Amino acid sequence: MAASVLSGPKEIRLEERRVPTPASDEVLIRVTAVGVCGSDAHYYREGRIGDHVVTGPLVLGHEAAGIVVAVGADVDPGRVGQRVSIEPQRPDPTSAQSRAGRYNLCPAMEFFATPPIDGALAEYVVIQSVFAHSVPDEISDEAAALFEPLSVGIASVQKARISPGSSVLIAGAGPVGLVTAQVARAFGATEVIVSDIDESRRANASTFGATRVVDPAVEDTRALDVDAFIDASGAPRAVVDGIHAVRPAGTVVLVGMGASDYPLPISVIQNRELIVTGVFRYANTWPIARELVLAGLVDLDAMVTARFDLAHVEDALNADRTPGSIKAVVTLPKETNA
Amino acid sequence: MAASVLSGPKEIRLEERRVPTPASDEVLIRVTAVGVCGSDAHYYREGRIGDHVVTGPLVLGHEAAGIVVAVGADVDPGRVGQRVSIEPQRPDPTSAQSRAGRYNLCPAMEFFATPPIDGALAEYVVIQSVFAHSVPDEISDEAAALFEPLSVGIASVQKARISPGSSVLIAGAGPVGLVTAQVARAFGATEVIVSDIDESRRANASTFGATRVVDPAVEDTRALDVDAFIDASGAPRAVVDGIHAVRPAGTVVLVGMGASDYPLPISVIQNRELIVTGVFRYANTWPIARELVLAGLVDLDAMVTARFDLAHVEDALNADRTPGSIKAVVTLPKETNA
Amino acid sequence: MAASVLSGPKEIRLEERRVPTPASDEVLIRVTAVGVCGSDAHYYREGRIGDHVVTGPLVLGHEAAGIVVAVGADVDPGRVGQRVSIEPQRPDPTSAQSRAGRYNLCPAMEFFATPPIDGALAEYVVIQSVFAHSVPDEISDEAAALFEPLSVGIASVQKARISPGSSVLIAGAGPVGLVTAQVARAFGATEVIVSDIDESRRANASTFGATRVVDPAVEDTRALDVDAFIDASGAPRAVVDGIHAVRPAGTVVLVGMGASDYPLPISVIQNRELIVTGVFRYANTWPIARELVLAGLVDLDAMVTARFDLAHVEDALNADRTPGSIKAVVTLPKETNA
Amino acid sequence: MAASVLSGPKEIRLEERRVPTPASDEVLIRVTAVGVCGSDAHYYREGRIGDHVVTGPLVLGHEAAGIVVAVGADVDPGRVGQRVSIEPQRPDPTSAQSRAGRYNLCPAMEFFATPPIDGALAEYVVIQSVFAHSVPDEISDEAAALFEPLSVGIASVQKARISPGSSVLIAGAGPVGLVTAQVARAFGATEVIVSDIDESRRANASTFGATRVVDPAVEDTRALDVDAFIDASGAPRAVVDGIHAVRPAGTVVLVGMGASDYPLPISVIQNRELIVTGVFRYANTWPIARELVLAGLVDLDAMVTARFDLAHVEDALNADRTPGSIKAVVTLPKETNA
Repeated sequence: MAASVLSGPKEIRLEERRVPTPASDEVLIRVTAVGVCGSDAHYYREGRIGDHVVTGPLVLGHEAAGIVVAVGADVDPGRVGQRVSIEPQRPDPTSAQSRAGRYNLCPAMEFFATPPIDGALAEYVVIQSVFAHSVPDEISDEAAALFEPLSVGIASVQKARISPGSSVLIAGAGPVGLVTAQVARAFGATEVIVSDIDESRRANASTFGATRVVDPAVEDTRALDVDAFIDASGAPRAVVDGIHAVRPAGTVVLVGMGASDYPLPISVIQNRELIVTGVFRYANTWPIARELVLAGLVDLDAMVTARFDLAHVEDALNADRTPGSIKAVVTLPKETNA
Repeated sequence: MAASVLSGPKEIRLEERRVPTPASDEVLIRVTAVGVCGSDAHYYREGRIGDHVVTGPLVLGHEAAGIVVAVGADVDPGRVGQRVSIEPQRPDPTSAQSRAGRYNLCPAMEFFATPPIDGALAEYVVIQSVFAHSVPDEISDEAAALFEPLSVGIASVQKARISPGSSVLIAGAGPVGLVTAQVARAFGATEVIVSDIDESRRANASTFGATRVVDPAVEDTRALDVDAFIDASGAPRAVVDGIHAVRPAGTVVLVGMGASDYPLPISVIQNRELIVTGVFRYANTWPIARELVLAGLVDLDAMVTARFDLAHVEDALNADRTPGSIKAVVTLPKETNA
Repeated sequence: MAASVLSGPKEIRLEERRVPTPASDEVLIRVTAVGVCGSDAHYYREGRIGDHVVTGPLVLGHEAAGIVVAVGADVDPGRVGQRVSIEPQRPDPTSAQSRAGRYNLCPAMEFFATPPIDGALAEYVVIQSVFAHSVPDEISDEAAALFEPLSVGIASVQKARISPGSSVLIAGAGPVGLVTAQVARAFGATEVIVSDIDESRRANASTFGATRVVDPAVEDTRALDVDAFIDASGAPRAVVDGIHAVRPAGTVVLVGMGASDYPLPISVIQNRELIVTGVFRYANTWPIARELVLAGLVDLDAMVTARFDLAHVEDALNADRTPGSIKAVVTLPKETNA
Repeated sequence: MAASVLSGPKEIRLEERRVPTPASDEVLIRVTAVGVCGSDAHYYREGRIGDHVVTGPLVLGHEAAGIVVAVGADVDPGRVGQRVSIEPQRPDPTSAQSRAGRYNLCPAMEFFATPPIDGALAEYVVIQSVFAHSVPDEISDEAAALFEPLSVGIASVQKARISPGSSVLIAGAGPVGLVTAQVARAFGATEVIVSDIDESRRANASTFGATRVVDPAVEDTRALDVDAFIDASGAPRAVVDGIHAVRPAGTVVLVGMGASDYPLPISVIQNRELIVTGVFRYANTWPIARELVLAGLVDLDAMVTARFDLAHVEDALNADRTPGSIKAVVTLPKETNA
């Protein structure tokens, strides 16, 4: 099969690899769509993200959908032919965190496209059957692939404790900010303020969930008064300003990745008894993602601004530099010639 | 002023009363709209509800809106002229329940239209300023009056722990069931099944929030599989069947009033670790009600099926016997001749 | 190996069986102590518990401790020789309930001594490695075996939301009631009232956790005023009276097994917004059990009132008929002659 | 009456003032004991704490007990003669925060000894009746006064979500750290590690709740592995190290006051999904404080290391500079000569 392999910073090319064999609890999936994440682009450009260093060949891609084409010995053969969205993680189900319902925090996690675990930018991948979530025909392959970033938005909004009538400030109108804004609306937030310094990104926010957009270069976001603040920017300045905007007993959720250490307004957190937390992936979000998309509460298809084939992954990884880009997707043929 | 006074079963008439004087923390409200609740009709017909017996003259009505026309000494005079929705309760804010955020459970509660406390079917009422919630122009007087039953729906859905993607069975398509179905949708439930034995009431449910309606005489609701069950019927049979429909770790909320004691399927509650609870009014729901109505997530105006003036309260109390009736409202002139 | 096998009501005898071979994720345990539970005695006497019918040979016993003597291919060989407490369940870790942290509610559960799954009244058993919890030397074999009923107490007290300063009424001073009373104290309850109609059982309660005992034949438990009620009796009368004793917003936990359907005071549950729920085994309790016993907050050893060897299981199953009996334990030799 | 009045940095003296008259909902209390808090000493030495500046005469002291000697018009006259512990706050019970059960976050709060609100270092004070909590004879005046710092410990441990079996690291063995360690034990924590650079303070910790003490100059607290970290030091270094010690999904509670802004390890918070929050006083803690002290789970009397009379408040404020000092208390005569 063909796989797109990263061998070092900016060194990526199509290679021929053996089709993997599903283990007893796994399914083999022919990939149909893979979204490109900022982390993929970061690995491609820098060869690392923090402590995670690309030291050997790595297949990128962790936002993926496909079709089950074979199953392991312990999996229902009836799954063959199912269209699925891939939850790209493999925790140890017996770890204390998994048993407590937080498998995303399992210390033994193997996660797609995180060195040395390969991702989904290939014709075929295997995943444990339970992490291959079937999707109905109403949901496109591309939307199914984007259940992954949608899950980040769901986890963020859940941790932000958003409920009907809530007000929320979201910093950053990139893909995560946009999907989070949509999820916040789906959870009943009636005021969804998105801040971004870029005008076209603010325009995207107005399309995808924001009830109001703010240019932080012009308007002081500290003067806002919201129930929750979700940072999807990773910018220390945005985080500090956002914390100042939260009312007593409110919530701050840090999703965006940025500097690993920076000053926070401790006395504000104390005096208002704010709850500050972070999001590290997600657990048990795929069923919710499916319902939100089916009900039309979240639009993933409209977020796809560019498509590439597997031979042009490098272009897909650079698509974020195109003005107006939101989400690039690598698409693979639905039908094989075989 | 004119007030509609109940003196005994089926004995109700308009009387002249002195306009009340607001205490220091109260506002005087000229009433503009009062919804008729099943409990009003029950007091009218039976002269009692359980242990609450009408032993002296009683003004009914606890779903009310109006205009502030005077304020007590400690209240901002700027409130005069405000359109308000009345939260018809007066707890002791220093009770342990109030201090814990559950003022609805305050043992010293004085509640509108519950003997011997008068309600709102009069030209003027007083209420503590903080329980007179201002409403914007986009919200009608009638909708503002119906924030009260909406609050019952909000409290029910909150206790049912409904969140995006939830499935819920609601038994009973009367006013509370209909408003609860709408709220469940607003909270993100993607499956809202409403059961009722009456066909026209099922039709109402389809209009107001249900994604599916069920006739329990035809379909076994026990065979359903939902995250939560909310009973708005008060019918023991519906409650028992509904409990059987809830999946493990799910929630059962008993809102409808009926028999005070009846058999529940204890082993189902135990083996599935269901959470069973009840709703006794509401606390802190008015701000949410306002947001839901403003955002168009709940439609209260369309639930009003009959209007009466203060001289025809008896007709309003009997309006529930008219086929197709959902909610009767007593309306009062917006402008006085004075 | 020797195993105690139940073939029908009151038909139990020692049989020779093949020592089981641990699967790749399992450990083989030489059993050292097995507590006798009321459910074991019930299966022995009646051949069934509700829908669970003994249709073939069944090994009883689900409260067990032992020593790891062999491990499966994927288990750390360093476990051999460890003293362990057995958590006698085998859920499917990929089920939705397991993934949500509630593996006790997994529909595919295989549980010791529940037909057709064999229990621990044998010289050797196998269990998944993660469900064999190592115990330190300070904890006896018998106490390690009784982590299982202790876990029921922990789950009950957690669901009852008991925290320091709480008051709780516990109905029934059998083994579960006694262990629950101790756990309630360990969780900080400062008022632990235990009711039982039997004087000697009330005396036991005074020894094991109760701050006060009540004879419900003499004192009206409805007149109590507590934050939580835990039923460990299964008696409908006790349950109804206990519910009446709970203050608004309090909690009711039904642990005791009894009739599957009986009348509850619905209007009390509604008007006080009580939370009523049940306990179906436990999840993630063994680490807590270990800490409570190590810290001396719970005394399990003192609850053992009779000991038997594997050849006298029938006597052990009938020990509950001896006056003063709390918990019978079947003990096996620590050292083998082999 | 005599009152100890601070007029500027290090300017404090006894003055004659008029005995206050209780408002209708208040009680007049003859003060018997007042604990000295670090914030009192800070106001005395610096004339300010952050934005709170002493601009006029101020009576210090917010840890107080006394005897009710008169009541307002709406208060039960039977309260006269009661011994009480004072909860030194006066929120607006109608604010949104109060109504949600978080009256400590009420924006209209008037708090003892916070400019310009006078405190309790006087012969008499008034407080709303509901904030004067009666104490039984078993509890001393001094212990009753120290319900206030105990409440800080209770709020901290509650926010840290400590339950039986929890492990917790507490940084700082001053009065708040010591009381928090005791409360952590009372809440069932089986590992309570207290870190302090001062040897005598570590010794105090061993007396008051710690199961283990650590000198952070010698041992790297980052290498610990705990469920929760509570900072009672206000030292940025201790906070950062403590955060590193918390396992995934654990909790960080910042109680100690220090710099208002300093760098936190954001990526640790994110990758472990830690919950970071602060404590701003307390709500609904007095009943719990009473139960903990009555049950002997917390020892407040032993924390009193020095006593002074009202004429020697200045010495009491400087008592924290005496080696071995934990808590100084100003005591007033139980009986008056009048």
